[in-house]
Amino acid sequence: MDIDNVVTGIVNSYEKYEGITKIDRGALINKNEIIKVIDLMQKILFPGFFEQKKLKSEYIKYYVGDICESIKYILNSQIVKAYRCCNDIDMEKMNHEQMQQKADVITDKFMNKIPDIIEYLNTDVQAAYEGDPAAYSLDEIIFSYPGVYAIMVSRIAHQLYLLNVPLIPRIMTEHAHSKTGIDIHPGASIGKYFFIDHGTGIVIGETTIIGEHVKIYQGVTLGGLSTRGGQALKGTKRHPNIEDYVTIYSGASILGGDTTVGKGTVVGGNAFITESVSENTKVVVKNPKLDYISSDKE
Amino acid sequence: MDIDNVVTGIVNSYEKYEGITKIDRGALINKNEIIKVIDLMQKILFPGFFEQKKLKSEYIKYYVGDICESIKYILNSQIVKAYRCCNDIDMEKMNHEQMQQKADVITDKFMNKIPDIIEYLNTDVQAAYEGDPAAYSLDEIIFSYPGVYAIMVSRIAHQLYLLNVPLIPRIMTEHAHSKTGIDIHPGASIGKYFFIDHGTGIVIGETTIIGEHVKIYQGVTLGGLSTRGGQALKGTKRHPNIEDYVTIYSGASILGGDTTVGKGTVVGGNAFITESVSENTKVVVKNPKLDYISSDKE
Amino acid sequence: MDIDNVVTGIVNSYEKYEGITKIDRGALINKNEIIKVIDLMQKILFPGFFEQKKLKSEYIKYYVGDICESIKYILNSQIVKAYRCCNDIDMEKMNHEQMQQKADVITDKFMNKIPDIIEYLNTDVQAAYEGDPAAYSLDEIIFSYPGVYAIMVSRIAHQLYLLNVPLIPRIMTEHAHSKTGIDIHPGASIGKYFFIDHGTGIVIGETTIIGEHVKIYQGVTLGGLSTRGGQALKGTKRHPNIEDYVTIYSGASILGGDTTVGKGTVVGGNAFITESVSENTKVVVKNPKLDYISSDKE
Amino acid sequence: MDIDNVVTGIVNSYEKYEGITKIDRGALINKNEIIKVIDLMQKILFPGFFEQKKLKSEYIKYYVGDICESIKYILNSQIVKAYRCCNDIDMEKMNHEQMQQKADVITDKFMNKIPDIIEYLNTDVQAAYEGDPAAYSLDEIIFSYPGVYAIMVSRIAHQLYLLNVPLIPRIMTEHAHSKTGIDIHPGASIGKYFFIDHGTGIVIGETTIIGEHVKIYQGVTLGGLSTRGGQALKGTKRHPNIEDYVTIYSGASILGGDTTVGKGTVVGGNAFITESVSENTKVVVKNPKLDYISSDKE
Amino acid sequence: MDIDNVVTGIVNSYEKYEGITKIDRGALINKNEIIKVIDLMQKILFPGFFEQKKLKSEYIKYYVGDICESIKYILNSQIVKAYRCCNDIDMEKMNHEQMQQKADVITDKFMNKIPDIIEYLNTDVQAAYEGDPAAYSLDEIIFSYPGVYAIMVSRIAHQLYLLNVPLIPRIMTEHAHSKTGIDIHPGASIGKYFFIDHGTGIVIGETTIIGEHVKIYQGVTLGGLSTRGGQALKGTKRHPNIEDYVTIYSGASILGGDTTVGKGTVVGGNAFITESVSENTKVVVKNPKLDYISSDKE
Amino acid sequence: MDIDNVVTGIVNSYEKYEGITKIDRGALINKNEIIKVIDLMQKILFPGFFEQKKLKSEYIKYYVGDICESIKYILNSQIVKAYRCCNDIDMEKMNHEQMQQKADVITDKFMNKIPDIIEYLNTDVQAAYEGDPAAYSLDEIIFSYPGVYAIMVSRIAHQLYLLNVPLIPRIMTEHAHSKTGIDIHPGASIGKYFFIDHGTGIVIGETTIIGEHVKIYQGVTLGGLSTRGGQALKGTKRHPNIEDYVTIYSGASILGGDTTVGKGTVVGGNAFITESVSENTKVVVKNPKLDYISSDKE
Repeated sequence: MDIDNVVTGIVNSYEKYEGITKIDRGALINKNEIIKVIDLMQKILFPGFFEQKKLKSEYIKYYVGDICESIKYILNSQIVKAYRCCNDIDMEKMNHEQMQQKADVITDKFMNKIPDIIEYLNTDVQAAYEGDPAAYSLDEIIFSYPGVYAIMVSRIAHQLYLLNVPLIPRIMTEHAHSKTGIDIHPGASIGKYFFIDHGTGIVIGETTIIGEHVKIYQGVTLGGLSTRGGQALKGTKRHPNIEDYVTIYSGASILGGDTTVGKGTVVGGNAFITESVSENTKVVVKNPKLDYISSDKE
Repeated sequence: MDIDNVVTGIVNSYEKYEGITKIDRGALINKNEIIKVIDLMQKILFPGFFEQKKLKSEYIKYYVGDICESIKYILNSQIVKAYRCCNDIDMEKMNHEQMQQKADVITDKFMNKIPDIIEYLNTDVQAAYEGDPAAYSLDEIIFSYPGVYAIMVSRIAHQLYLLNVPLIPRIMTEHAHSKTGIDIHPGASIGKYFFIDHGTGIVIGETTIIGEHVKIYQGVTLGGLSTRGGQALKGTKRHPNIEDYVTIYSGASILGGDTTVGKGTVVGGNAFITESVSENTKVVVKNPKLDYISSDKE
Repeated sequence: MDIDNVVTGIVNSYEKYEGITKIDRGALINKNEIIKVIDLMQKILFPGFFEQKKLKSEYIKYYVGDICESIKYILNSQIVKAYRCCNDIDMEKMNHEQMQQKADVITDKFMNKIPDIIEYLNTDVQAAYEGDPAAYSLDEIIFSYPGVYAIMVSRIAHQLYLLNVPLIPRIMTEHAHSKTGIDIHPGASIGKYFFIDHGTGIVIGETTIIGEHVKIYQGVTLGGLSTRGGQALKGTKRHPNIEDYVTIYSGASILGGDTTVGKGTVVGGNAFITESVSENTKVVVKNPKLDYISSDKE
Repeated sequence: MDIDNVVTGIVNSYEKYEGITKIDRGALINKNEIIKVIDLMQKILFPGFFEQKKLKSEYIKYYVGDICESIKYILNSQIVKAYRCCNDIDMEKMNHEQMQQKADVITDKFMNKIPDIIEYLNTDVQAAYEGDPAAYSLDEIIFSYPGVYAIMVSRIAHQLYLLNVPLIPRIMTEHAHSKTGIDIHPGASIGKYFFIDHGTGIVIGETTIIGEHVKIYQGVTLGGLSTRGGQALKGTKRHPNIEDYVTIYSGASILGGDTTVGKGTVVGGNAFITESVSENTKVVVKNPKLDYISSDKE
Repeated sequence: MDIDNVVTGIVNSYEKYEGITKIDRGALINKNEIIKVIDLMQKILFPGFFEQKKLKSEYIKYYVGDICESIKYILNSQIVKAYRCCNDIDMEKMNHEQMQQKADVITDKFMNKIPDIIEYLNTDVQAAYEGDPAAYSLDEIIFSYPGVYAIMVSRIAHQLYLLNVPLIPRIMTEHAHSKTGIDIHPGASIGKYFFIDHGTGIVIGETTIIGEHVKIYQGVTLGGLSTRGGQALKGTKRHPNIEDYVTIYSGASILGGDTTVGKGTVVGGNAFITESVSENTKVVVKNPKLDYISSDKE
Repeated sequence: MDIDNVVTGIVNSYEKYEGITKIDRGALINKNEIIKVIDLMQKILFPGFFEQKKLKSEYIKYYVGDICESIKYILNSQIVKAYRCCNDIDMEKMNHEQMQQKADVITDKFMNKIPDIIEYLNTDVQAAYEGDPAAYSLDEIIFSYPGVYAIMVSRIAHQLYLLNVPLIPRIMTEHAHSKTGIDIHPGASIGKYFFIDHGTGIVIGETTIIGEHVKIYQGVTLGGLSTRGGQALKGTKRHPNIEDYVTIYSGASILGGDTTVGKGTVVGGNAFITESVSENTKVVVKNPKLDYISSDKE
């Protein structure tokens, strides 16, 4: 019968390509739970904005405490699952209890970083307001700016990345990528007062280091020079350094681990930069000449 | 105890950075309700496409009337909340009832614009069909073209923007931005028969004015020249004018409030334009010379 | 009364613009059901990754069989609806039963292609792992890479496209486009070991042909040269051929149906290519000179 | 393997007991859709009570019209399915279109009865208020009295029963039975001003006829004398007649198709009545003597 | 046209029977919100039983505090709406702010009663365990005994009743009635160690007073003698007093405001009691003689 | 501050009454998961009735197999949790793995009983159709008869009870009790062709034994004689035996572990039986005399 053939065909192919199956393997990461952590974090990072009830100061500690507990609870169990997924040699020596203990320690360390994340996000919102003439209020920025969302997720994920949590930070930033078109690798280190305008098409690579008061527009790539090396390049510094007060306009690419854009420099739209630029410079694409052909002549 | 420290740390930081909290402030905008308005609008702008039941002409007026009522109901309450959020001086003098009355008047004006929106969208769908050889039917366009979705939301949001509704128009267009990668500021004025192909990475700024029969491809920016002025630039004409029958190919940037692309002009891919272009011109990037290096020599 | 005017205005405009209404027409495609097919396919293409329970090999055939049944059930009814939507002359001659029989045959053919899709996706995941130094494990790639998601949907939709199913393939790929910013037309033919990095802003046109071991970065367009012809161009070969082992870096555009990028060639970032490139070539944008203006002098 | 045995065992038993399977039979009644009809009816029978938004008189016709449309739509398709389920000889001669036409006519007739149902329910609510000293307001009755809910559903289902709709009326009243413990067969004919207090454990049989201003308490049975006949009794008058202004206290049973309780009579708690009672009588259980045993003596 | 007639017919009947409509009246009680209060109360009255995550003592205060806040928030707004619904003369003099203040005071008083409710429920669970040989553990009782659920809701509703909150207490107890078949009026006063076994069909009237250590079985009515007076009886003592250590077996009715069942008395199944019974008595129905008819003779 | 007092008061009471808390205890039974098992069982016990898609015989084994897998998966994890909840001495000696193995064995045994359950339910549906003149079809019975639902759940729960699974069987039957008003203890042993009509208010105790072809009406109690012994009675035979072909009419009580109702006997409404009745007897309540008081005289 037809259906039996279809099923047998599929099941047989699982045996051939078992790298892309999880059959008979348990403890799977739950993407929805990880997104829930982001949603819960958003509630305490911008308290009151994403809650339908009015938060009152007399109750605020219970509100925060209960959300912290939920974050801790979910994060804990997902981190244990992430440890089991990864092929790390040190992990493989651990039993379930040791993993759980390690996850506990990690989660606690993460929770203690939340006030720092709030401090940084406060500067990011400030930077967005000051940098964008189209912004009418801080509320508008927090409610609707994709850049602020992407930075928030990236700041959360970066803390987990620093704590060597596998898989989860990347799932977080890819969620933000999917919602905003802004792809910030959790490994990227980003200073205060970071402002992304419009955002779609931005790529910020794993080993990028960004200073304070940096502004970036849509379509900007802070990437690697070549990926020919593949896995062999893992761990090397492949992405650029952007110093304080740099502005990078839309479509510009800044590539390479040795490339540094100096303090206060402005990179013009569509610039393609693979070598360092000194401080306080304005880099403009020498106008790639345009032909103006009258349509009469065409 | 550890958790108490975490909670205290977070709560204390709320006091420091109260600009990004809404504690003890009520009347919050509800993003989901605003998205619901978009969904309801879509049901009456393209009747029958986003409804699982078959709409019948004998019932259609009840269907439309009930949806109008729901739109009016939700919009009303969200507009009042938006008034409360914004820091407008005129608003601050109003009491709750005056705001509600103002919201009533505004909502009514908006509702009366719906037939115009339908008229415009009809031309947009037409333009998409005629402009895209890959389009097999009007149905395909309405069901699946991100450009049509983004234009629809932008036409809705623009009407609210013209009525000086704060916050809501932007939340609407950012929702469309998130789903499509097309970022049209609600302030942009757009003529009939507007066609966006593919769309991802398009930015259309607040003070842009677009004529009729304009076609735009992915990665196009209609933006400002520099944002150095920040909030000081608010309200000035910062974005270009695109006249009738202009086509702008992918990756092109047209920047500046004084920049006008004349009627019938075609702007080639990746062109970077900061000065006006006359009518019926074909602007082509003089091929930025390419080096063809044989890999033998590499 | 005001509301009556609004309703009448809207209902009247439906009569004027009936191309964008579905009133008194039934049998409508259900977008959510089509997305459900994608979700179900994902469960059997990467078994265990998107399921919260642990899959066991002793049960796997029932799991696969039941999902196959659901896919078949939904796909069947949606294909019949799609046939009714399209304006195909051959279709119009068919009655409901004939359409249903045709849909049955088509669905069966599609189901038999699933093992092939698994085979191809296995190579894609392999290519992603080998090509991306930032990838820590196959799991990370399957869970979080937008490129893998877009390719998966494209491989599903392409099979339906080859079976001449109207509407549905495009709705599928536009769903992936919305989630990833990667717009692959279901008509595009794509070889094994295809890797898309970052992805946002990628456009791959309907008649594109891509070989094996091809790598593509964000912002790449494989498009048509001009769309001036509109519907007259339908069916012609408008998009390029990309041969085996080609790498195309971010922002590059390769346009035109006669344009072929030869085997092993590397296309540099932002290259704008409208003519064929021979094999094993490295195409680099001759650096569009940059001006470095010290801000002292500005 | 074990699981295969389990599955085979189950599938084999389907062949043996096919009366209780629906395999290879389609067009199944959807219980949830039928409950949805009740919910929609409740919204227009008690307008504003079960809606979170404030209904306005200027919009009310659209609200009602749209709900009517939904009721008609769902009811129609469920009635066709019910026709297919039942084994009626007349039905079996009909093709799908004839069934659909019949369902259309029936649904229209039902819709025209809605104002009558409202009229009756108005009297029922009145009766509840006047009859129950514990009732503080009409609102309390409409919001919370199980008797009112059960009567509402019974009045809806009775109209469908009169129109010979199979299956659906019974599914409706069993839903009310499940929520309230009040089991009124849709065949029962019930006059105005009907009041059920507390309700749990009430049974009202198919051929019961109840006059106006009747009050019934918890645990009352209006039933048949014996069911020994089984299916042979179908269609015969098996349940009692209750004339106007009768009150029946808790736990009383009135049994038999020839049993009539005359106008104005009061039936005391726990009375067991199998013969007619004349008008204006007070039937009291002659106190089944109680023994009072002092626990000293026990 | 038909549908217009139906709609007009319905809308017209709203004008005739406006007592059962809420058109143009706002501020409606939301039944679902009230049920949510019950669900939240259940979470803190039996902490950990109805929560999927493990509660930890280090976090418990945040958990409780956040739930308290939610209860307070919902209860507050529903109480204000309830005040508006009721036709109380004192209420009508209040403006919205005064109502809100009153609701605040009431909610606070209610919240302070929660520890008392926990104390009482603890005794009820104890009583259930000791009284029922079929109970295997306290867990079984808390998870699955309908009696415990009904008592819990009744103890919550009774506190609100004592605070003169209209509508809400009754909606709460009717929700429990619907789930359990146990109808306890919120006015009933019930002592510690109350045990209801099986429960279905129990009615406990508004002015009932029940002592400590009382056991009640299914089908028991603690009711009024006659309801002939209707609304005129409102406020009078109509239901019995049940003193400490009384057991009432299934189907018994105890009726009348002057009826007191003395301490330690056991009321046998089906007893019908309308007069007081002294202490430590065993009341048994003198066996209503049964006829045993051999079926041979029938 | 007030809220802190409330929270402290509640948290303190948890320490006093820890029997009714689960703080710092994990592994909690999930009621919703247990209800899900019932829902899944219903899908395979009455295949096609509670599924919106048409089941086809060619696919049926995959459908059944996948549902079996889900049942097994959920049941397994809930049984382990139930073992942890109960205070059984044997259990306490087991470690987590031993419990899991035991749960595996138990679940397998249960799964193998499913064909038997189908066989029994088939007879129950048959009995309902033959016994009830109001039944129009088997479909009506399966869709809407509360008795069939209660028996189904009881037959499922009884198998788990026989396998000594704690807590879960009772939670299952209480769910059915809540929906139907029929309270069958999972310990009760019930023969084939069991028919419950109307159902509300039925109680069937733990040690009841019921033969084949038994019919029971609403309000019937098959209970214990006295519960004075409380927990001391646990495990003793406390409830009656009902032999084959017995009919018990509404409101009858049959009490006591030594009470046997002989084969073929009919117990009349409201009969109160505490001693055995011989075979083929008709037990009728000798009419408790009624007083007929003319209302003139009153």
